[in-house]
Amino acid sequence: MPRSARQVQLVEYPVGEVTPDHFVTVEVEVPEPQAGQVLVRNTFTSVDPGMRLRLRESGPAGYFNSFSLGAAMDDIWAVGEVIESRADGFEAGDAVWHAKGWRDYAIVTAGEPALAGIATLARIDTSVAPAEKYLGPLGAMGVTAYAGLLDAAQLREGDVVWISAAAGAVGSLAAQIAKLRGHRVIGSAGSEDKVRYVLDELGLDAAFDYRDRPVVDRVQEAAPDGIDVYFDNVGGDHLEAALATLRPWGRVALCGAISEYESTGPTPGPSNLFQATANNLTLRGFRGSAYRHRLPDVVRELGGWLAEGRLRYRETIIDGLERAPEALMRVLSGNTTGKALVRIS
Amino acid sequence: MPRSARQVQLVEYPVGEVTPDHFVTVEVEVPEPQAGQVLVRNTFTSVDPGMRLRLRESGPAGYFNSFSLGAAMDDIWAVGEVIESRADGFEAGDAVWHAKGWRDYAIVTAGEPALAGIATLARIDTSVAPAEKYLGPLGAMGVTAYAGLLDAAQLREGDVVWISAAAGAVGSLAAQIAKLRGHRVIGSAGSEDKVRYVLDELGLDAAFDYRDRPVVDRVQEAAPDGIDVYFDNVGGDHLEAALATLRPWGRVALCGAISEYESTGPTPGPSNLFQATANNLTLRGFRGSAYRHRLPDVVRELGGWLAEGRLRYRETIIDGLERAPEALMRVLSGNTTGKALVRIS
Repeated sequence: MPRSARQVQLVEYPVGEVTPDHFVTVEVEVPEPQAGQVLVRNTFTSVDPGMRLRLRESGPAGYFNSFSLGAAMDDIWAVGEVIESRADGFEAGDAVWHAKGWRDYAIVTAGEPALAGIATLARIDTSVAPAEKYLGPLGAMGVTAYAGLLDAAQLREGDVVWISAAAGAVGSLAAQIAKLRGHRVIGSAGSEDKVRYVLDELGLDAAFDYRDRPVVDRVQEAAPDGIDVYFDNVGGDHLEAALATLRPWGRVALCGAISEYESTGPTPGPSNLFQATANNLTLRGFRGSAYRHRLPDVVRELGGWLAEGRLRYRETIIDGLERAPEALMRVLSGNTTGKALVRIS
Repeated sequence: MPRSARQVQLVEYPVGEVTPDHFVTVEVEVPEPQAGQVLVRNTFTSVDPGMRLRLRESGPAGYFNSFSLGAAMDDIWAVGEVIESRADGFEAGDAVWHAKGWRDYAIVTAGEPALAGIATLARIDTSVAPAEKYLGPLGAMGVTAYAGLLDAAQLREGDVVWISAAAGAVGSLAAQIAKLRGHRVIGSAGSEDKVRYVLDELGLDAAFDYRDRPVVDRVQEAAPDGIDVYFDNVGGDHLEAALATLRPWGRVALCGAISEYESTGPTPGPSNLFQATANNLTLRGFRGSAYRHRLPDVVRELGGWLAEGRLRYRETIIDGLERAPEALMRVLSGNTTGKALVRIS
C-alpha cells in the first residue's frame, strides 16, 4: 500500500482566465479504507469545460457544487483499479469508475452518491473497451451526446443537424451518432485542423471554421435550406446563428456554452430569441446526468460502433496528475481535440 | 350598397414610438364583389401588440408580412356581416370572420388564405357568443392561451404557473385556464389596478406589479418554492426572472415579448440562459396560429366556461375606425385591459 498520495487542490477562485497559479499539487497521507470503503489507484481522470463553472465561489443555481479551496476536488470522474477493498461486492483488481478524480489514490465509499446523486462507485467492463473509454463515449460524454440528440433535440428522420464544437468530446460523438443514423450533419470548430478532422475522419457532410467569418454566414452557406436541429456546445453567436437558420418546428439542445464560461459577469443571451416564437422553435436545456437511464443504450449502441471501428473517438491525453490544471486551461482555450484526460502514472 | 368606404393606411414605418402621424384614414371607393367574393360590413376589428413587428420594412423572418405603405392593412382579424355575396356558401346577413381588418367595408374572396395561410373567410356562430368574442376567447386569443399552456408549456398536474401580462388579452385567458384546471397561478401586470383585477376578478392565487421592484424578487416572494411553468408575454427581465425561479424540468411558453417590440435594434436575450442547461428547462416558442386545430377544443371548453359565467373576459373597446392607430398605441404602452378592439360604426 502506498505511503503517500498526491492531489490537486484549488488555491483561489480565478477571475477571468484560469492559470496554473490557481492550483497546487500537494502530498497527503493515504488513509486506510474503513468498513464499506475501497482504496482505488486512479489511472485516468477527467477534464471538462463545465468544470470552469465550479471554479467560482457560487456557481449557477442547480448546477454541481463549487469546488472547495484547499481540499481535494470532489465530483470529477475517474477510473482506476481497486487496491484494497473493505466494501461488499468489490475486490482488489476490480476496474471501477467513481467521482474522486484529480488525485492518484482515492478512498471511495461504496454506495455513496456523487456528482449530484447521479454517480457512485461502480465496476466497469474492460472487455468491452479500455477503462478510459468509460470517461468518454461509454460514460457521461456518450450519454450527453446521445440524450442531447434523441431526447433534448428529439431527432427525427430527415432532420438536418448542426453540431458546434464538433471536434470536441461531446460534439464529435453527437455528430457521428447523427451521421450513423443517416442525417445530413454540419459541424463547426475553431481551427482548420479540427475542420479537416470532422470532414475527413468523422465524415460529416460540411464543416467550417467559425473564426473565419460570421458564424451565421457560414452555417447558412452550409445549409442554404435551413437546419432542423442545433446541438449547442458554444452559446453566444453560435446560438444566434442557429435561431436565424432553424426551420419551423426546429429544435435546439442546449448542452453548454463554453464561450461564456470564462466571463466574469452575466453574458447576454441571443438577441433574436423572438425567432423561437416566430418559427415554433424549442430550446431544451439538458444535462447528460439527467439521462443516466440511457447508459445501457449507449454502451450497447456506441460500444457496438466502437468495436466495429465505425465510431471515431479522439482523446487528448495529458500525462501526469500535476498537469491537470494545464489540461483544463487547454480545454478552455480550445487547444485539445476530443475528450481531454489526464493519465496518472 | 355603400358608395364609399374608409380604411386606415400606414404612411411610414415608425422608428421607436408609434404615433398617430404614422397613419392616415382615407376614403376609397367600394369595389363590386366579383364572382367568389363577398362584401362585408365590418363591425369589430382587432388590435394586438404583435402588429408592432409588422410596422417595419422587414420584420422577423418567418413572422407575418410587414404592412405595406399607402395601402389597406391586410392580415388583421375582423368580424362583420355579409352585405352582398357572390360566393357559394355565403349569403347576405351571415356573421363572418376574415382578415381584412382596419377598414369599414371589405371585399373578401372566399377560400383565399390569409394570415400566413391560417385563416380564411368563415361563418361564425353568434348563438354561442357575440361576434366580437371570435376576435378574443373563441378565436386566436383563446387558441394562443390554450395551446400555449397545454402544448407549448405541456402543463401537468400540480404545476405552479406564472403568467406575465396577466391582465392582457392572452394572459388573462391563460391565467384562468390554468386556474380553472386547478393550478396555483401567479400573475404579474403593470399597474395596481391590473393587479387588483387579476386577484379579485380572475381569482389568481398571487399577483404583483412588476413596476415596483425587481421582477425576480417579486416572483420568488410569490413562489418561494419555485415555479414549473412560465407563460411569457413580456421577455426581458421577466424571462430572466423565470429562468432563475423555474424548478428542474420547468417549461417556458414563449408567446411574445412586448417589452422588446418598440426597440429599434436587437435586444439582448436573457443573461442566465445557462439555467436551462443546469435545470433541464424547456423554452418553447409558439404562435397560436400554428395550433389552429385546437379551435374546436377552445370553442367547446372556453365557450362553455363563458356561457356559465366562469370565464371573465375584459375588452377595451375603442369606438371609431379612425382611432385604430390610437388603440394600437394604447396597447403598446399598456393602457388597455384585456383584448383591445375597435368598434366600427
